[in-house]
Amino acid sequence: MYYMEIIGLIAATLTTAAYVPQVYKTWKEKSTKDISLSMYAVLLSGVLLWLVYGIYLESLPIILSNIITSMLLLFMLFMKLKYK
Amino acid sequence: MYYMEIIGLIAATLTTAAYVPQVYKTWKEKSTKDISLSMYAVLLSGVLLWLVYGIYLESLPIILSNIITSMLLLFMLFMKLKYK
Repeated sequence: MYYMEIIGLIAATLTTAAYVPQVYKTWKEKSTKDISLSMYAVLLSGVLLWLVYGIYLESLPIILSNIITSMLLLFMLFMKLKYK
Repeated sequence: MYYMEIIGLIAATLTTAAYVPQVYKTWKEKSTKDISLSMYAVLLSGVLLWLVYGIYLESLPIILSNIITSMLLLFMLFMKLKYK
């Protein structure tokens, strides 16, 4: 069912886009006091496992969204370590 | 591959568990000033579409994690509207 891949891609866009305002805010304000390192580390571990699972399912929405989300989370962790 | 479902379930547990500290903090402090209504509304829309997609894929990890995450997000939205 081709339209189901569309639904998956819309789902992927929405749940990935939700992180963007946080990344932008942190990048702009260079302040990470209220950011939980462990929460982002747990999220990144989960997202990387979702990526493995998505490759196994050969699901483009799962693969794409978890590649982009893992880059956003890595950038958050980088900023957390850089801007104490 | 049965062990791939295990990887999916671990991924589901990690990315769902990451929301729990935020829900607990908000429930305990009854303060939602810094919580973005639109971010949670966007996340909930995305998670509900992931649920549809997971049912189509017949993927237990995707179905379970998105049912639990949507309940956590609904509770966050409820608290956002209740505790201004």
